[in-house]
Formats: sequence, C-alpha cells, structure tokens
Amino acid sequence: MKVRITEVGLRDGLQNEKLVLPTEVRLDLARRLAQAGVRRLELGAFVSPKWVPQMAGSAELLKAAVGAPEFRDVQLSALVPNDRGLDEAMQTRVPRIAIFASATESFSLKNINCSVEESFARYDDVVKRAKKQKLSVRGYLSMCFGCAFEGEVKESVVVKLAARLVEMGCDEVSIGDTIGVADPKQVRRLGAKLLRELGPRRTTMHFHDTRGTALANILASLDLGITSFDSSIAGLGGCPYAPSATGNVATEDVVYMLERMGVKTDLHMGRLIETNRWLQSKMNRELPSKVGRAGLPQRLGIVRAPN
Amino acid sequence: MKVRITEVGLRDGLQNEKLVLPTEVRLDLARRLAQAGVRRLELGAFVSPKWVPQMAGSAELLKAAVGAPEFRDVQLSALVPNDRGLDEAMQTRVPRIAIFASATESFSLKNINCSVEESFARYDDVVKRAKKQKLSVRGYLSMCFGCAFEGEVKESVVVKLAARLVEMGCDEVSIGDTIGVADPKQVRRLGAKLLRELGPRRTTMHFHDTRGTALANILASLDLGITSFDSSIAGLGGCPYAPSATGNVATEDVVYMLERMGVKTDLHMGRLIETNRWLQSKMNRELPSKVGRAGLPQRLGIVRAPN
Repeated sequence: MKVRITEVGLRDGLQNEKLVLPTEVRLDLARRLAQAGVRRLELGAFVSPKWVPQMAGSAELLKAAVGAPEFRDVQLSALVPNDRGLDEAMQTRVPRIAIFASATESFSLKNINCSVEESFARYDDVVKRAKKQKLSVRGYLSMCFGCAFEGEVKESVVVKLAARLVEMGCDEVSIGDTIGVADPKQVRRLGAKLLRELGPRRTTMHFHDTRGTALANILASLDLGITSFDSSIAGLGGCPYAPSATGNVATEDVVYMLERMGVKTDLHMGRLIETNRWLQSKMNRELPSKVGRAGLPQRLGIVRAPN
Repeated sequence: MKVRITEVGLRDGLQNEKLVLPTEVRLDLARRLAQAGVRRLELGAFVSPKWVPQMAGSAELLKAAVGAPEFRDVQLSALVPNDRGLDEAMQTRVPRIAIFASATESFSLKNINCSVEESFARYDDVVKRAKKQKLSVRGYLSMCFGCAFEGEVKESVVVKLAARLVEMGCDEVSIGDTIGVADPKQVRRLGAKLLRELGPRRTTMHFHDTRGTALANILASLDLGITSFDSSIAGLGGCPYAPSATGNVATEDVVYMLERMGVKTDLHMGRLIETNRWLQSKMNRELPSKVGRAGLPQRLGIVRAPN
C-alpha cells in the first residue's frame, strides 16, 4: 500500500503561526522538504499581505521554486482566493492552484467574507480560467467534521459541496477537520460517503491534531481505502480559537506511523527530523510533532523487521 | 460499546516525573479522579523510596484511601515488586495488587535487576500469597511492542509470557508499549493473538503516546474487540530514554475520542479537564494532554449529535 502526502506546512501551517518567516527561510524550508522526498508541496497563498502577513512574498517564493532543479519532481501549488490571485499565480507558472471553501456559512463569512454560494460562484470563474490554462486544481473544504461557530455539520452538506467542487473542475478535494474535532467513527461514516461520491483519486483527508485524534483518523481513513493525506512539517500551525492547541497533523508523525505499518510514503524520516530540528531553531517555539520531540526509537528501524 | 479505563497516572505517570508530589497532593488528585468517574485507580507502589522517591508515602496514601467513602466505587490497586512489598500492601487492605514483568531480558535487568525467569519465579510466590488473601492481581508486561535495548520483540515471546502471567494467577495482563513505538498494524496482529490466548476480559492495552500513535493504537485494539485500556490523567509521565517525550496516553484524550465515537467510558469530561488544570498548577510544567491544552470544542457536545 502506498500513500500520497501533500505537505501544507508552508501554507496552512505558517499562516496560522504568529511568527512571520522571511521568504528566504521559507524557500530554504521548501528545499529541505523536497530533499526529504516531499512530492506535493503547497508553497504559499496569493492573499492580501495586510490580512495574512505570513504569506507575503508568495509570488517571489513561487518564482524562485517553479522550474528550479531541486523542485523538478515536486508538484508545487499555491492558494488562490479569487481572479486576481489567479493572475498572480499564473505569472509564477505554478502548475497547480488551490481554492478554499467552507462547509458552513458562518466560517465562510468569517474566513473569506462571503456566503458559501457566493464563494462557489466566484470559484467557478477562477477554476474555469485555471483549467483553460491546463492548471490542476485542488479544492479545500473546511469545517467538514464540526464547526467552531455552528457546532455539528451535516454530512449530506459536506458530500454535496465536495461533489460540486469536483463538478466545478477540482481534480481533488481536501476534506478539512479545521478545528480538530473529528473522531474515527465519524471519519469512517463520512469517508465512505465521500469515496462513493468522489472516488479514491479525488479524496484527500486533511486532519488537524488539536485533540490528538489525527493519526487515529488517518488510520480510519486508510481502512476505508483513502490514500491521500495533508500534513505539516513539525505540526506547524495552530488554531486561532484555542491558543495553545496544535494545528495540522505533523508530517513526521504521519510518516512514522505509516512506515512502521508497512505503508509506503516515499518520505525520508531522518531528513524530516533534521528539518524539524532546523525549523525549531527558526520558529522560536517548541513545535508539536511528537516524533520530532521524541526522535526515532533506538535499535528499531523505521521499517519494521519481520516478526 | 463500553470500555474500562484504568487510571495509572498516580503510579506509572508520577514515577516518571521529575517533580515529587507530596502525599496530600496525590490523595487530592485521587479524590478528584474518583469524582470524575474513575473506577479503577492505581494509587502507588511499594518500592524503595531511595530508587523511586516519587512513590514514597504510598502506604500512607493507600491507608487514607482504602475504605474511605469517596473511593467506595473505585477499585484501588498498588504495585508490588516482591514479598516485602506484598506485606506492606496487605497492611493497607488494598484489594488489588499489580506486578511488573518485562518481555525482554535487558529491560528486566535494568528495571528490576533480575532476569525474566527470576522475576517470574519471584512473582509466582507473590501472586500465590496474594490469591490466598483473595486479592485480585494485575500483571504488567512491558516492552511488548519494541524494546529500548533490544529493538524488535518477538510476538511469540509476548504471548507466551502473558499466558504465564495468567497461569500464575493474574486476573488481567496489561500489555505495555513502554517506549511508545507501537503501530496499529502491529497492534492488530499481536492483539489478535493475545485475545485468543487470554480472552477479552484479561486483555488490557497500555499505550504510551511518545510518538503520537496511542489513540490510533487504541482504535486498532477496539476494532479487535479489546475494551480495557490504561491511561494517565493529563498524560503524566515521561520516558527516561527521551527527555522531552510524553509518557502514558492522556486519559482526557482517550475519553474524548471514545465518547465522540459513541463508546461509553463513564468518565466525566468536564471534571477531567478541571483536574488537568489543577494538576498543571501542581506540576509546574505544561502537561502533554492535547484535550487538556485545547479544551473541548465549543458548540459541540462530547456526545456527538445524530447526523
């Protein structure tokens, strides 16, 4: 069994960190991730630096990375909120964009300042233009397992909106547990419905580890046949609604569990841990990845010996 | 579905903390846990205070708790390393003792200073005497999923030693992932063998969350039909082999995942979180429980609303 991992630390991770990393440091991080085997990497976002200062310089970063030899095998992408963002993205020649929708009205209004319907109408144009330029498109759908403002979220709504993202032209939908409230039973129920609707190639799970359940949720997804997951190096990112909570599930933690299970990720554990150590020194805080903190077990390989 | 949780924070947790908590504070913690619905509680250990200062005063603690009205519904237990420990335990009238064996020679030698065979010979006497006094007995088996000194551990050895603990008279065997290296696939394989050998009533899983996999491992165990787990309030405890690594899986994190899945634990989430906050102030460090840090999700109950 093999799993695709999309590294979102440079975008979803960093945009939720207090500290703003300079563009050169972000490029350095991207290079280290590519060297660790990351093959799908979201590098930045074409959003207003006034609102999201952490993503300032994304154009510069993308321009430096797209076409550079060290990223030859890496599918780079950038988040694009609207037509103007798409224009900026196209100037960097990034081959993949991502759009960001919400499963709930309240979060849509708070996060992107329009209703769900308005956002879909806007993205419809963006995706049409992107597809004409042969860009591939990832659709994020957030708050799929529970909403910070509305509480429980109806599974039928999540499935319907995910299907609309595919109809619109998204090659893949990333189903987000934005506030880290999902449990494995819910993942199995909603995941099965999503797989039926979208198929395995278009279904990606995006778990936050806010309450420690992310790896259990990945296991529940794997059991269903879902093989595409998002993660952030070192567990970068937080949650604006819970100050000391952790954000995205850490790439190292995902790779540790999967590789020990015999599920291939093609990522290089030792280099991920080196990148964690290096990043720790840049972020001025202890980052949440548990494998990052504990290190690899001594006398045990990452690949389990036959028993 | 219903799960039994054994709270081991006061013993396995505290004995791995640098800070030594006074007996009154430990009794206060035990009372708070009982009020939060804990029904199986390991209170202390009759080991040398020279080697394990954190467990000093265990006799005093047990004497204060055994028979007290606030612990009427709580099955209390104490760790007992040898005959002298059993004598001390019996003086407190604690109804349950625990013995501590290792699945590997190296850890047995380092931890209890004798070979596995020597420890089994010693425990054989202890358990016989305990059973004569109608005490119930829990057997810990450590390093079952990998050893800090020997690397991979043979599943056949774990199953054989667990079976010997039952033959010896243990009512229950707690299968320990002492250094937090288990993965869910391994848990499924070894767990199935243990269930066949010991039966579900005697099989308890004891996971450490050192590398973030504990909840996934609990999910894997649950899928097999294992319904008894050990945990520590707030994730108390560390690992002597990895300075900043976390120890036992946190009770709050286990209860959060299970209750959201609709699996009953009979523990009171709000009171566990209050206990976490209180304990935080006593331990002088940020404790690892993720639910403790993030808190409960707003607008979402612990019991998931029907979808």
